Amino acid sequence: MNSTTALPRTRLRITGGILADRAAIVRDVMLPYQWEALQDRVVGAEPSGCMHNLRLAAGEATGTFHGLFWQDSDLAKWIEAVGFRLGSFPNAALEETVDEVVRLLSLAQAPDGYLDTYFQLVEPQKRFTNLRDCHELYCAGHLLEAAVAHFEATAKTTLLDVARRLADLLVRTFGPGPSQLRGYCGHEEIELALIKLARVTGDERYTDLAAWFVDERGRTPNWFEQEAARRPGDKLPWYVHHDGLAYWQAHRRPAEQTEPVGHAVRAMYLYSAMADLALERGDTALRDACFRIWREIEHRHLFLVGGVGADGPGGEKFSEPYDLPSDRAYAETCAAVGLVFFARRMLDLSLEARFADVLERAFFNNVLAGMSLDGRSFFYVNPLEVRPREARRRYDSRHVKTTRQPWFGCACCPPNIARLVMSLGDYLVSHHGDTIALHVPATMRIETGSDDSAPKIDVRTEYPWDGRVLLTFHCTAPTELTVALRIPGWCRSATLVLPQGGSIEIAEAMPSCVDGYTLVLKRGYLHVTGRWSDGAALELRLAMPAERIYAHPSVAATAGQVALQRGPVVYCFEEVDNGPDLAALRLPRSARITDTFEDSLLGGCTVLEARGRRVCADLALEDEPLYRNTPHATTPAHLRAVPYALWANRGEGEMRVWIHETEV
Amino acid sequence: MNSTTALPRTRLRITGGILADRAAIVRDVMLPYQWEALQDRVVGAEPSGCMHNLRLAAGEATGTFHGLFWQDSDLAKWIEAVGFRLGSFPNAALEETVDEVVRLLSLAQAPDGYLDTYFQLVEPQKRFTNLRDCHELYCAGHLLEAAVAHFEATAKTTLLDVARRLADLLVRTFGPGPSQLRGYCGHEEIELALIKLARVTGDERYTDLAAWFVDERGRTPNWFEQEAARRPGDKLPWYVHHDGLAYWQAHRRPAEQTEPVGHAVRAMYLYSAMADLALERGDTALRDACFRIWREIEHRHLFLVGGVGADGPGGEKFSEPYDLPSDRAYAETCAAVGLVFFARRMLDLSLEARFADVLERAFFNNVLAGMSLDGRSFFYVNPLEVRPREARRRYDSRHVKTTRQPWFGCACCPPNIARLVMSLGDYLVSHHGDTIALHVPATMRIETGSDDSAPKIDVRTEYPWDGRVLLTFHCTAPTELTVALRIPGWCRSATLVLPQGGSIEIAEAMPSCVDGYTLVLKRGYLHVTGRWSDGAALELRLAMPAERIYAHPSVAATAGQVALQRGPVVYCFEEVDNGPDLAALRLPRSARITDTFEDSLLGGCTVLEARGRRVCADLALEDEPLYRNTPHATTPAHLRAVPYALWANRGEGEMRVWIHETEV
Repeated sequence: MNSTTALPRTRLRITGGILADRAAIVRDVMLPYQWEALQDRVVGAEPSGCMHNLRLAAGEATGTFHGLFWQDSDLAKWIEAVGFRLGSFPNAALEETVDEVVRLLSLAQAPDGYLDTYFQLVEPQKRFTNLRDCHELYCAGHLLEAAVAHFEATAKTTLLDVARRLADLLVRTFGPGPSQLRGYCGHEEIELALIKLARVTGDERYTDLAAWFVDERGRTPNWFEQEAARRPGDKLPWYVHHDGLAYWQAHRRPAEQTEPVGHAVRAMYLYSAMADLALERGDTALRDACFRIWREIEHRHLFLVGGVGADGPGGEKFSEPYDLPSDRAYAETCAAVGLVFFARRMLDLSLEARFADVLERAFFNNVLAGMSLDGRSFFYVNPLEVRPREARRRYDSRHVKTTRQPWFGCACCPPNIARLVMSLGDYLVSHHGDTIALHVPATMRIETGSDDSAPKIDVRTEYPWDGRVLLTFHCTAPTELTVALRIPGWCRSATLVLPQGGSIEIAEAMPSCVDGYTLVLKRGYLHVTGRWSDGAALELRLAMPAERIYAHPSVAATAGQVALQRGPVVYCFEEVDNGPDLAALRLPRSARITDTFEDSLLGGCTVLEARGRRVCADLALEDEPLYRNTPHATTPAHLRAVPYALWANRGEGEMRVWIHETEV
Repeated sequence: MNSTTALPRTRLRITGGILADRAAIVRDVMLPYQWEALQDRVVGAEPSGCMHNLRLAAGEATGTFHGLFWQDSDLAKWIEAVGFRLGSFPNAALEETVDEVVRLLSLAQAPDGYLDTYFQLVEPQKRFTNLRDCHELYCAGHLLEAAVAHFEATAKTTLLDVARRLADLLVRTFGPGPSQLRGYCGHEEIELALIKLARVTGDERYTDLAAWFVDERGRTPNWFEQEAARRPGDKLPWYVHHDGLAYWQAHRRPAEQTEPVGHAVRAMYLYSAMADLALERGDTALRDACFRIWREIEHRHLFLVGGVGADGPGGEKFSEPYDLPSDRAYAETCAAVGLVFFARRMLDLSLEARFADVLERAFFNNVLAGMSLDGRSFFYVNPLEVRPREARRRYDSRHVKTTRQPWFGCACCPPNIARLVMSLGDYLVSHHGDTIALHVPATMRIETGSDDSAPKIDVRTEYPWDGRVLLTFHCTAPTELTVALRIPGWCRSATLVLPQGGSIEIAEAMPSCVDGYTLVLKRGYLHVTGRWSDGAALELRLAMPAERIYAHPSVAATAGQVALQRGPVVYCFEEVDNGPDLAALRLPRSARITDTFEDSLLGGCTVLEARGRRVCADLALEDEPLYRNTPHATTPAHLRAVPYALWANRGEGEMRVWIHETEV
């Protein structure tokens, strides 16, 4: 058990490769575009209403509230993303824009600290009367997160002051006291946000409140039921369906929960807060719950692309173990973002490669699929199989979009992608005790300490297209340091090349000392301890062939099918490359799969190709019957797969990740 | 083009085999059970309200209307089923029960002939103001059908008089006249019912109105849009979704329609009426439309079990061509019943085996699956794959029931099964000109003419478990007669044994005369013309091995999978026989499939068995990972399949029709 408080943030700057490319798109295109969207200026997109509502609440405009009651959170997430961006790339004009938004937020804030434009403008008398459905604390949480990022980037306390006034109101309002509400939010988020605010302000009352929210959740009598009883005619929302209180993870105390349930994004945010509290407070019951739930997610609920949430139309939520349908997958972009949050916090609790395996699976596939290459359109739902005509026509597929959308009526996902990509440095590397742990390689400069004389590490890699990762140390004097290099779960063969040129196959049974460096392989991380001179180079070589992936036999949806993965990147077959009727394609088990980096394709990516087959209708017949008692012939087919994250960047068409396999 | 009017009904009595068994269950158990259900006397079943509503409308009870606005139709279908039953098996007590219902119907009928308990009791001012949604003419149609069956069975005109008064009201109300409504019903049914009423009464005004309803449908300006514009705040029902006017088959004139669209039951009833009108009126445009639509159903929209309607949650309707998902199949029992109606009418238009192929596919599989072996519970939705835990939990599977239900809030299906089974004789055999056509074999006695001296044919067979069909002729004197024997599409080898013992392989190139009998194979029917002596025997031997069935390569849902069929019977794998995780089973293409008739299983049926494989998780691991890069091992598995129609008669469990195939 690690009982330290929050670990120091590692300072790093991503300087090249796909992550720098995506960050540039977000920085230069997506954030300005989203600012336009938040002001309802994107032609053809669903209006947001965010800035309109804020100006109304600030008394600087007239009109009526637009949108859903959690609309404020879209703006908060955008401010948070901008905060992260300004921290890495200061920009005076953008900072002024945010200052103006902060000015409006200050104006809109009620004297007692309350700030929620929906309830202020539409239903002021209903403040905190329906925590189950109305997302007030969720919106507050996002404002707190925005304030922390804004403060850390600009050192201005303008927004932090707003956030503290709001948080102080929550501290006064919620708790076990006789005049306090014993409630908690139907959409978790406030918990992890309060912990962030406490870390930045040093005010432990905020962590106390977060801990109380988590501890109070799911107790009997249940707050949501008590609260509902006070609302005349209250009915459970339709989307709760089978789940009841589990929809809100409120069916039992979080410390006693054993499996992921209910709305997937809410679940991820709750589990993230639980992991934070386990770390901050040394709460072993919450820690154990996090490990239990993690195991169930990883073993029974995770789509290959790193998404969660298999029951989309029914409330964006978890389904039964092994229920992972490709075409009905929800795999909401926000849920994958939330899974990255949870995974990163699990790494703080225990440095184990399995957590980073899921982190990068979610990020490189499900999260990145959420944005178009041009940064101006987004997926909310990320199925693993799409047939556009059916998706448009079937009522039970109405949530599936066949092309990315310019905005959404409920636009939670676009700014969630933005804030994650803008803060990605926090997810690639971390201090773990005295160790610098490299979770996900990228071309970047890592500062190992906050003072300028601390050693720096330059990392060069073409990851995820290539498995070679070169670390070069920069130190004013030779320095003792441990770096922990993750050996990914997908990697079957890894080699380490030490500064003196010694090379070693990484395996459980390898020597514990080479060239004076101590090597320890522990839970998937290779800990290399040594005294590093300036210019010392360490190379990790991760073999990264294309791999066939098979799902557990209990996954009915993918039976008889195989997927392709190379490194952390999951592939898909698109109609534009393979023609229509992708289900008629067959990948023989014996077929060789070639990988080629194509510089000009989709911003540069590795494509996979193989000689496969295609099951064919009988061309001699005018109209092949629907059913027949003889197998169909097959013809050779050149199969070509591109990274899943890049699908639907070349027009609309069929797509599938899992493809039927023949055994010969 | 056959320009005759309605063909004479063939009198026959089913005397043995599975059809007699099912008829006995319906007669002795289901009809009395449904009578209890219609009176809300079945404990644990959703109440019907039918008789309650009727007594209210008749002024013989007090209270309020219960149920949906089309509730009357359930009672009408039950009366119709009882009518068919009394025609074959008179029963004084049951006839008295129906007489009492008829008395109430007469009392409830308004002086002008109107009869619809919902509108009479709940919204009398809204009569005929929302034909699109409110099913008034649909309910009227079922009353007309009930009256025809009641009259034909009992020769009493009591109910026929009620029906005529109602039909006369419709004749006065609907039509092109200045004071008439140019509308038609959102749920087709009245059209085919009016034609039945015209056939029995000889009153051509009813056929005229049916023809007008069909001709007016889908014209521009559209009645449903005009009518909606007169209803303040009218919105399209949610279930219309993608389809618009096509949901009601009202997007264009029926004579111009080219493919099945919209609500599947409504579509079937419309197409049945179109086929009736093509026959009655020699309407070639309608005939051509029927043939076009039929082809599309058969080639692109038919589930293997003979069901239609692939988009269930979205309004019980047709989806895209080849969109035939096994787990999301709707395949409503009523739609399969309607497909039997349509197929039977297509046989009247053109004696082609393909129509009877679909008729028996729908009947022996989808329709019979709708009832339990004990006659007391029913399926409304008939998927081809069920995993009970997921079906209960997923919101998009909420329409799927994993066990048959005692009744439904919308209980259209149970009495629809009853009326079809009770009138099955009309579907097995027909006169086609001077020919007696045998569409579906059963053990039965056929009377070839209405006068008692006409030849009779005794048919003996164990069909569908066995392909031997023995016909014995009974004539007072040798008689010239043509019998047309269907050679089913599923049959690859058929032999005819003539009365003198001559035997011949049935094929296009066979001799046209054997033993003095003329043989003509035409569109799948073998026409055998001869002079038959008393006791002459003709035997048809249809080879009926178990067959592997493959779907068209464009059917994504069943790619890589195979189904088993023997004769017209489609098989399924159940958990009770094969263990859980049926998707992990593999049927090798080379495996021999054995068939065994098991007398004591499920009322007696043929089971299919094969040596297959099961894909296994690695037992050496505590918890097999969700994904891995090596294929799983397989172990031998004894596969056992039972007829789909009989699934879920041995408790709840997984079921699937399509099973993964390995090529070796």
